[in-house]
Amino acid sequence: MAAWSERLAGVRGVLLDISGVLHDSGEGGGVPIPGSVEALARLKRSQLKVRFCTNESQKSRGDLVGLLRHMGFDISEGEVTAPAPATCLILKERGLRPHLLIHDGIRSEFAQIDTSNPNCVVIADAGESFSYQNMNKAFQVLMELDNPVLISLGKGRYYKETSGLMLDVGAYTKALEYACGIKAEVVGKPAPGYFQSALQEMGVESHEAIMIGDDIVGDVGGAQRCGMRALQVRTGKFRSRLGGSHGPATALLLPRVPSPGCPLFSLWDV
Amino acid sequence: MAAWSERLAGVRGVLLDISGVLHDSGEGGGVPIPGSVEALARLKRSQLKVRFCTNESQKSRGDLVGLLRHMGFDISEGEVTAPAPATCLILKERGLRPHLLIHDGIRSEFAQIDTSNPNCVVIADAGESFSYQNMNKAFQVLMELDNPVLISLGKGRYYKETSGLMLDVGAYTKALEYACGIKAEVVGKPAPGYFQSALQEMGVESHEAIMIGDDIVGDVGGAQRCGMRALQVRTGKFRSRLGGSHGPATALLLPRVPSPGCPLFSLWDV
Repeated sequence: MAAWSERLAGVRGVLLDISGVLHDSGEGGGVPIPGSVEALARLKRSQLKVRFCTNESQKSRGDLVGLLRHMGFDISEGEVTAPAPATCLILKERGLRPHLLIHDGIRSEFAQIDTSNPNCVVIADAGESFSYQNMNKAFQVLMELDNPVLISLGKGRYYKETSGLMLDVGAYTKALEYACGIKAEVVGKPAPGYFQSALQEMGVESHEAIMIGDDIVGDVGGAQRCGMRALQVRTGKFRSRLGGSHGPATALLLPRVPSPGCPLFSLWDV
Repeated sequence: MAAWSERLAGVRGVLLDISGVLHDSGEGGGVPIPGSVEALARLKRSQLKVRFCTNESQKSRGDLVGLLRHMGFDISEGEVTAPAPATCLILKERGLRPHLLIHDGIRSEFAQIDTSNPNCVVIADAGESFSYQNMNKAFQVLMELDNPVLISLGKGRYYKETSGLMLDVGAYTKALEYACGIKAEVVGKPAPGYFQSALQEMGVESHEAIMIGDDIVGDVGGAQRCGMRALQVRTGKFRSRLGGSHGPATALLLPRVPSPGCPLFSLWDV
């Protein structure tokens, strides 16, 4: 195994996942992961560029940042790459009018979008709004279209809340894909274009960047396919049972104990 | 194209799907499909053996038969192959204690099954009970198991109710498969063992049997893979847009107009 100094040579920028890395979401906004407020503060004091790359699609970017700032994190809206604003750009570019299967918490992000006479469906992490009725309505809209377009904000399998593991949007996207016989377009990790836009906004090339996340597929695998390095934290949805073998990627796990020559451990001591 | 007499040569038994062939389910139990009460009566007067092979998993076999008899169909409980009783046999054989993600209408079928301390999940067409909370509970049960077992009563994509197309259990099964990284065991069409048990109960070999259904995958494709012939009706979920090309099977469609030498047309004039 290569030394940490070798593995991290040339890194100029860090992309940070939010849920499971900074905090666990949940009742009342969730809780910060112990040590993560300080870890982020240390990271920001370093020479490394920092950007947040999230698939959060239950809360607007403003609400999410407000919540995190309240927990003590040094984060601003302009530093966050999130799927809803990226989706709005795509909808406008392609003249798409979505039927929205989303959580009320993110509806404000789509305020400027024409949703009359829908010609596509946008699905996000709708949480409790994933009722049978709402799923069926989205299904019926798709089945009425000659060329059904389904845009999915991420394709996460699940995430961790303070109360336990929770089904994420990807599961419901698979349901609609199967029912309609179609394939969704993913806006969010692990879509390569999504990582690229985050790198561009940070001003760092992929070989100079490292992604830190808790999702072996969405974070680690996706980043690696874009030529980035990636680290999997042992918090959030990380489960040792799945190890590094679940999914297409092999995780470079953050060491549990201080490891000589691993600068990120001292920065990201989780 | 071969003549009907040739295509149907040697047929001794008919397996009939129920939803979309006999009736469209829906509000107040749904409505019979025009002509189907008479078609079944004619079929029963013929020399052909008849058995019903359904994936219905919202209603108990007793309730379903009661409803159909009330509509005028000549049908009894013993003539119906349904997935819930077949599942109960499997659960008992393998010592499985299910967490049930099912509709209240079918709960009575599982009255004799031990559901304490679950070591598997059984998913059926739960309809409105496919809430986020219920889906998440089933997901959490599976994630807690060392060897997660998911048994799905059919894997239909959707069915037709009087109010429109409705998502079927298969979509939700796909959601859990994806979230947990597992593969469900299907009890129901198109599982070969399910067709075989229906044929056995009818006392007819597969090459002597024909399946009549509205589902190109579950009915037509499944039956053909078992060595049976199959006819797709133009009612229920049948949609001409999908034609015979959607799914692995090629449908032999019932003719729209009387076709010389097609005895089933006069029997099943739908």
